[in-house]
Amino acid sequence: NITNELVSVYAFFASILTFEIIVMSFLTGQRRLKTLSFANPEDAIRRGDTKYCRLNPEVERLRRIVRNDVENIPTFLVTSFLYILTGPRASYFAVLMGLYTLLRILYSFAYACAFQSPTRSVLYSFGLYFVKLPMLVTVFYNCLLG
Amino acid sequence: NITNELVSVYAFFASILTFEIIVMSFLTGQRRLKTLSFANPEDAIRRGDTKYCRLNPEVERLRRIVRNDVENIPTFLVTSFLYILTGPRASYFAVLMGLYTLLRILYSFAYACAFQSPTRSVLYSFGLYFVKLPMLVTVFYNCLLG
Amino acid sequence: NITNELVSVYAFFASILTFEIIVMSFLTGQRRLKTLSFANPEDAIRRGDTKYCRLNPEVERLRRIVRNDVENIPTFLVTSFLYILTGPRASYFAVLMGLYTLLRILYSFAYACAFQSPTRSVLYSFGLYFVKLPMLVTVFYNCLLG
Ligand SMILES: N[C@@H](CCC(=O)N[C@@H](CS)C(=O)NCC(=O)O)C(=O)O
Ligand SMILES: N[C@@H](CCC(=O)N[C@@H](CS)C(=O)NCC(=O)O)C(=O)O
Ligand SMILES: N[C@@H](CCC(=O)N[C@@H](CS)C(=O)NCC(=O)O)C(=O)O
Repeated sequence: NITNELVSVYAFFASILTFEIIVMSFLTGQRRLKTLSFANPEDAIRRGDTKYCRLNPEVERLRRIVRNDVENIPTFLVTSFLYILTGPRASYFAVLMGLYTLLRILYSFAYACAFQSPTRSVLYSFGLYFVKLPMLVTVFYNCLLG
Repeated sequence: NITNELVSVYAFFASILTFEIIVMSFLTGQRRLKTLSFANPEDAIRRGDTKYCRLNPEVERLRRIVRNDVENIPTFLVTSFLYILTGPRASYFAVLMGLYTLLRILYSFAYACAFQSPTRSVLYSFGLYFVKLPMLVTVFYNCLLG
Repeated sequence: NITNELVSVYAFFASILTFEIIVMSFLTGQRRLKTLSFANPEDAIRRGDTKYCRLNPEVERLRRIVRNDVENIPTFLVTSFLYILTGPRASYFAVLMGLYTLLRILYSFAYACAFQSPTRSVLYSFGLYFVKLPMLVTVFYNCLLG
């Protein structure tokens, strides 16, 4: 039930993370239109020429952000949901969820703006090693020890 | 519990959406075999020559469908599950789930058949902006307002 | 609740499957560093030259493993969670979850090592057709028959 505080915290940040993927997908589509760089000949023809079915480095960059989201976020949403079942304090859970969400937003921003390396990698690793992995390990041991 | 009407509606459409991804993956594999276009040298060698490790536009098209599914469906399955917790009417929920499922199937079909642009984009946008996003916003506000 | 035996079995194998994706992503990153093959110019510049923004067959192979995981595992985690609601015996559920997890680990291993075809495809198909699809069909019929 969403009136449960832990579930409510979960749902709140899960919707922000999902929204972030939607925004990056949307920006990818906009960039395709702006640079006339489509993935399909039928889209290119609509703009007048099959030559617009082509790769563009800005589009590819945005696509890499979505791809990285897709590699990380759906499994995070499962892990953090299972983490609820280990019975964390709601405030602590909110900090973990908020931190991961913030780091993923900053990651996408750093990626999109091509910030100097290793900014992006640091943001990525921080979320993975300080939030997602500890949650995962906690779930794992809770199952083992019952 | 699956005897709960909302959960049952969810599980029904979630399995269809998952099945759709499986079907598109299967078709990708079949198209690889038919066009002798493999992603790995070891698969190509089995057919007699490493030259069969190559790209094929029909295979790439099917792969783009799976990729787009993977960008959209797992997070939809989380969003729509959380949406249950906001307490919608079962019939209304069934319409939303059925509509999204139908639109994703039509999207895949339009993509696979390279229907004239913007057919595919319209089907995509309809599902995203008229089903997934409203559900997401509802979940978000329900968390905010408790 | 994680003290529920079925949920505990689920959470146990779900964390292993999620960990497997994390490991393959990590190995991808390591291989990028070792072969100096980056996806972004800013990463290449940090190693001294934009020419290191390039494709490498070993990196691409690892990326294909992650991609295949992402195509299969998130929806498996939803399907197997819904499968709990159909009320399987805990021991039987543990066998199914354990088998799928084992097959995905062997799949990744066979893929990474470029085992002779069709080893990888057999491992893939076994998990899909003998575990994931039967679970999915069971969920589907349970919803239909209520
Ligand atoms: N699939 C990733 C696996 C490793 C990873 O996620 N690395 C982070 C930190 S260096 C990243 O930003 N990778 C770039 C990307 O995924 O496009 C890759 O190909 O690089
Ligand atoms: N990743 C997508 C983001 C935007 C999107 O999903 N657009 C829809 C409607 S135009 C689409 O069908 N894109 C083609 C695709 O994903 O292959 C892209 O690269 O185009
Ligand atoms: N997206 C997959 C769909 C079919 C599939 O998953 N096939 C398995 C068994 S042959 C596989 O290992 N495909 C190679 C891959 O996904 O890189 C593809 O492009 O091959």
